[in-house]
Amino acid sequence: MLIIMRDHASQAEVDHVVERLREAGAEAHLSVGEVKTIIGVIGEREIIYALEMEGVAGVEEVVRVLKPYKLVSRDFQPEDTVIRVGTTTVGGGAFAMIAGPCSIESEEQLFSTARAVKAAGATMLRGGAYKPRSSPYAFQGMGLDGLKLLRAAGDEVGLPVVTEVLDVRDAEKVAEWADVLQVGARNMQNFMMLDELGTFRKPILLKRGLSATIEELLSAAEYVLKGGNRDLILCERGIRTFETYTRNTLDLAAVAALKALTHLPVIVDPSHATGRRELISPMCRASVATGADGLMVEVHIDPEHARCDGPQSLRPEEFSALVRDLAPLVTLEGRTFGGEA
Amino acid sequence: MLIIMRDHASQAEVDHVVERLREAGAEAHLSVGEVKTIIGVIGEREIIYALEMEGVAGVEEVVRVLKPYKLVSRDFQPEDTVIRVGTTTVGGGAFAMIAGPCSIESEEQLFSTARAVKAAGATMLRGGAYKPRSSPYAFQGMGLDGLKLLRAAGDEVGLPVVTEVLDVRDAEKVAEWADVLQVGARNMQNFMMLDELGTFRKPILLKRGLSATIEELLSAAEYVLKGGNRDLILCERGIRTFETYTRNTLDLAAVAALKALTHLPVIVDPSHATGRRELISPMCRASVATGADGLMVEVHIDPEHARCDGPQSLRPEEFSALVRDLAPLVTLEGRTFGGEA
Amino acid sequence: MLIIMRDHASQAEVDHVVERLREAGAEAHLSVGEVKTIIGVIGEREIIYALEMEGVAGVEEVVRVLKPYKLVSRDFQPEDTVIRVGTTTVGGGAFAMIAGPCSIESEEQLFSTARAVKAAGATMLRGGAYKPRSSPYAFQGMGLDGLKLLRAAGDEVGLPVVTEVLDVRDAEKVAEWADVLQVGARNMQNFMMLDELGTFRKPILLKRGLSATIEELLSAAEYVLKGGNRDLILCERGIRTFETYTRNTLDLAAVAALKALTHLPVIVDPSHATGRRELISPMCRASVATGADGLMVEVHIDPEHARCDGPQSLRPEEFSALVRDLAPLVTLEGRTFGGEA
Amino acid sequence: MLIIMRDHASQAEVDHVVERLREAGAEAHLSVGEVKTIIGVIGEREIIYALEMEGVAGVEEVVRVLKPYKLVSRDFQPEDTVIRVGTTTVGGGAFAMIAGPCSIESEEQLFSTARAVKAAGATMLRGGAYKPRSSPYAFQGMGLDGLKLLRAAGDEVGLPVVTEVLDVRDAEKVAEWADVLQVGARNMQNFMMLDELGTFRKPILLKRGLSATIEELLSAAEYVLKGGNRDLILCERGIRTFETYTRNTLDLAAVAALKALTHLPVIVDPSHATGRRELISPMCRASVATGADGLMVEVHIDPEHARCDGPQSLRPEEFSALVRDLAPLVTLEGRTFGGEA
Repeated sequence: MLIIMRDHASQAEVDHVVERLREAGAEAHLSVGEVKTIIGVIGEREIIYALEMEGVAGVEEVVRVLKPYKLVSRDFQPEDTVIRVGTTTVGGGAFAMIAGPCSIESEEQLFSTARAVKAAGATMLRGGAYKPRSSPYAFQGMGLDGLKLLRAAGDEVGLPVVTEVLDVRDAEKVAEWADVLQVGARNMQNFMMLDELGTFRKPILLKRGLSATIEELLSAAEYVLKGGNRDLILCERGIRTFETYTRNTLDLAAVAALKALTHLPVIVDPSHATGRRELISPMCRASVATGADGLMVEVHIDPEHARCDGPQSLRPEEFSALVRDLAPLVTLEGRTFGGEA
Repeated sequence: MLIIMRDHASQAEVDHVVERLREAGAEAHLSVGEVKTIIGVIGEREIIYALEMEGVAGVEEVVRVLKPYKLVSRDFQPEDTVIRVGTTTVGGGAFAMIAGPCSIESEEQLFSTARAVKAAGATMLRGGAYKPRSSPYAFQGMGLDGLKLLRAAGDEVGLPVVTEVLDVRDAEKVAEWADVLQVGARNMQNFMMLDELGTFRKPILLKRGLSATIEELLSAAEYVLKGGNRDLILCERGIRTFETYTRNTLDLAAVAALKALTHLPVIVDPSHATGRRELISPMCRASVATGADGLMVEVHIDPEHARCDGPQSLRPEEFSALVRDLAPLVTLEGRTFGGEA
Repeated sequence: MLIIMRDHASQAEVDHVVERLREAGAEAHLSVGEVKTIIGVIGEREIIYALEMEGVAGVEEVVRVLKPYKLVSRDFQPEDTVIRVGTTTVGGGAFAMIAGPCSIESEEQLFSTARAVKAAGATMLRGGAYKPRSSPYAFQGMGLDGLKLLRAAGDEVGLPVVTEVLDVRDAEKVAEWADVLQVGARNMQNFMMLDELGTFRKPILLKRGLSATIEELLSAAEYVLKGGNRDLILCERGIRTFETYTRNTLDLAAVAALKALTHLPVIVDPSHATGRRELISPMCRASVATGADGLMVEVHIDPEHARCDGPQSLRPEEFSALVRDLAPLVTLEGRTFGGEA
Repeated sequence: MLIIMRDHASQAEVDHVVERLREAGAEAHLSVGEVKTIIGVIGEREIIYALEMEGVAGVEEVVRVLKPYKLVSRDFQPEDTVIRVGTTTVGGGAFAMIAGPCSIESEEQLFSTARAVKAAGATMLRGGAYKPRSSPYAFQGMGLDGLKLLRAAGDEVGLPVVTEVLDVRDAEKVAEWADVLQVGARNMQNFMMLDELGTFRKPILLKRGLSATIEELLSAAEYVLKGGNRDLILCERGIRTFETYTRNTLDLAAVAALKALTHLPVIVDPSHATGRRELISPMCRASVATGADGLMVEVHIDPEHARCDGPQSLRPEEFSALVRDLAPLVTLEGRTFGGEA
């Protein structure tokens, strides 16, 4: 931590800051200029993060050098985390191809889609049973019935299933039926839910919030790992910017940055990021080339009648073409779908 | 709703869209140009919002003209909602002056601050018992003990109290001790919590999310009103932009826009919006002049030792000066603190 | 300047950095921790800013503590800059009320509007002769003919005139006809134009760029002052964010921050910031209460037939009501329109 | 164009709008609902874009369906534009690999870098002679001397050269020495410069502005093509968002969108987009996989002593490894470096 004092801060102010640091168990190193004094602070993460020096008299700015997370960091664990989900794996060379409808709408819709994505090469099945919708007048999902259908569809086609936990009170119920528990973008900083999921024994798929920084995403992940659950997959799904042509702005540099900063697998959701079917394929290709560990793509047997996200859902034949198209790129990146040799 | 067809969409595509609209019970009006056909759709909000036409063949874009909310709209209720909270009121000419510490840290800290803000003219006491913190290593609040202290402090000085519900599972407990239940920016789209709070009989203070549009804020409020709870206060607290000099960017035009779009009271939190003590006073003045119905300001008896938000907390004497300074402006706007005659 | 070394940077890397700093004439102060070494750098602004240490081996981050500007800073000149423009003044208690059409369209349109805004209490007349338009198919302005009309209209009603310099090659021509030269948001970082205008003897009105930080705005202003022209007015006109309800997001906290950081007058353009007529009045009130030194408002005798910015232009009677409405607020802030006693 | 009338707009207001449209030569098609009337407007682009209906009484919103550009559109020209630059080509299967220093600092620095990038496989040499710098105290470039060095270096190694036109008054001089004229991000909406460059016979490289939408970028390009110069290369270089880990946010979905919307070649500048050396390689790979037509990468023989952009500049051996690494991807995308068979 660096403490930058205001111009011409008094000696008493500087002394006071140094004293508070020493009380807290941190070391202070001074750089004294004509105009400015700068104080370098050295100490343990827990001490440094508990220090709130911004309000102290004479302090202009506090620059935190230590990261606000530890367990998720590559410094802490240099080797890739590899997550086993049923018969498939994610991370460490295993590329996840997660596909399925935005929302589970009916047995027919889900099972048809599940069979189609399995045939095309998906390694996991997705489907929303509880849907976060901006307007209370929009379709909110099938709930528990949806969960049961998802389990049955996954079992029939032989794919592990991932679905969103929208309410912390439903977490156990969802964990009963699903293999991977998704935390949606709007809940990325729902810290109580992250705390709860940290005690679970199921992998978590944590989506980046619409306006979350890379550091905030990693700090959110730290909540889960701190609770004891080490199986967490990060997911970039676009951030909110001024550009309205796409639904969000896919931040692939964040994926490359995350791969360097953390040992956790990082996947990409190009469907929500772009909101446009015609951009899914190029963004999938770009994600693979960036070094992502997987993709999550919305597929619907009949996008025209989808109850949500129709414009960004691929038809089964489009998804099938996509997987074929990606195969040589995935190989070039030294990955295999689902970690199969 | 307007449906804009792709350039040179086929007659069959247009016919198909029209047919689907009619099936759903909506009326279709065609504008046929050389290049483009545009379809105006007329029908009830519930029908229109259930229609997902974006995925239909030949459709380029869907423009929603009807708002995704109804109960919160000024069209639905032209007169201001006035909310009674204990002995004070918010809205309809009553100006709320909510003050207190970011987090409740100790009996001494809270009671001293409570006495000071009451003496200075606050109309409500705020204080966080459960704190959302980006890092799991930062102070997380005193929890239930904090809630009880807050109730006791409010009772002693005679001010209603407002505090945040961080976890939907704590909502009832918080409602037992507090007068107004705050939904923080990170939970603005925690729809399950909004649903739950819609069944409560306590006023809700809903903060705008860091990257929420005005329409999304109103849609989130609609969840609460749809559940039956009509006492909701909106709070602008800054949005996330590229500017880093301030913690967030205070969007006062949104306050003016909300005052026109909804009958609900709208207050401003300049502390979180700016993150800088020296900007609190000008932004309070600006908020009053914009037509806001109240302010929520962080006050701490000893900002230097605050466990959160020290740099943006006012000292009691600064808060006292602020209230004195604001009084003529509040009068000029035709408002009275707390609605007292 | 602070140099933060990478974790476990080698002694040789640290020594090398220190050596380069000393060669350049700067002092280095070391804070050595177990993991990190931090180097405080002390020296003159010119030396510090010429140093490019980001690329040096072992360096993780460079934090610049010294501001990239000097002449515009309140540290450099504590008292307000007061700018005389013909018979009116801006800054130091003098409040500028600048009004007129977005673009000059005809003699009739301009003169009628000029007479109306003068009668209503404007202190300066604005009007665009050269218009920056996103599309080459939109109206581009009347050019030199417009400039001449503006001069004539200002002279007739007795108001100084302000207009935009769109092309550096036209700067002298514009300076011949106008009293204040405006640099538009899109040209805020047109450094060659800023350099040129720094040699002029006419006041400059510099608008903040759509995505410019406060620091970048002040650095742009520094270009002009460094050239010798000390008469510069800053103008906040909204920044580009994700919110689309308003045309831009008016950043009033930036106005308050600028008033503290610089001695230059700061005005607000609520017309471009909001793009909506109904928000002009509340944002004008908020600007005055924030401590702005003036307003620039679009007024058109017939907004319905305006060739640009119709939806955000006030009608003369609306402008007249606005000025009346603002008067008590301006007085409350200790300002007078145009600096008249 | 669609005109959405306010709720319960009067018949007179609707009639008035229809009349104005017909006067202007456009057709009006009405959709009349209980609450809202919507007017579809059909007509030629020039007529539609000259219509300013937003200010008309009773009008709530105007939705423009026709694009504000024509010549740059793929509808107008379906086949890719292929641009010949000396001995190399860009577009239509030819992949441009543009490399060189941020700024030209000395003969030794430029020539060494030029030889290195040529050897590594670059197809064009870049180097800044005029540098746009936020602070007037930073290095501003070598000017004309730099231009001459660039020409000489390009000639020696046999590479065409690209450099920025910072000031419209220098455009002819730059055109005398360079093969491709770059318009920087800060000048993307310097319409007078775009007009001027539209009359030149040299290819233009137009960088996207920091906060420019895809539509604004294409509209800016339209200025150049409208002037008669059809040889324009678009360049995505990151947009400004809330994320500060990277210098800007690289928007690769925009590249994919541009490839669909326009026939012009689209290249990517990952150096300015990310500002971090370690992210250059993954973002180059991602750009190729997205379908970009080229890359522009900063290379410096000694980044540690670079006078600008050191942290994002590759060393020659890093650039060489990058080109080798990209080759199979470029082939997979059906492209060849510089268009060589």
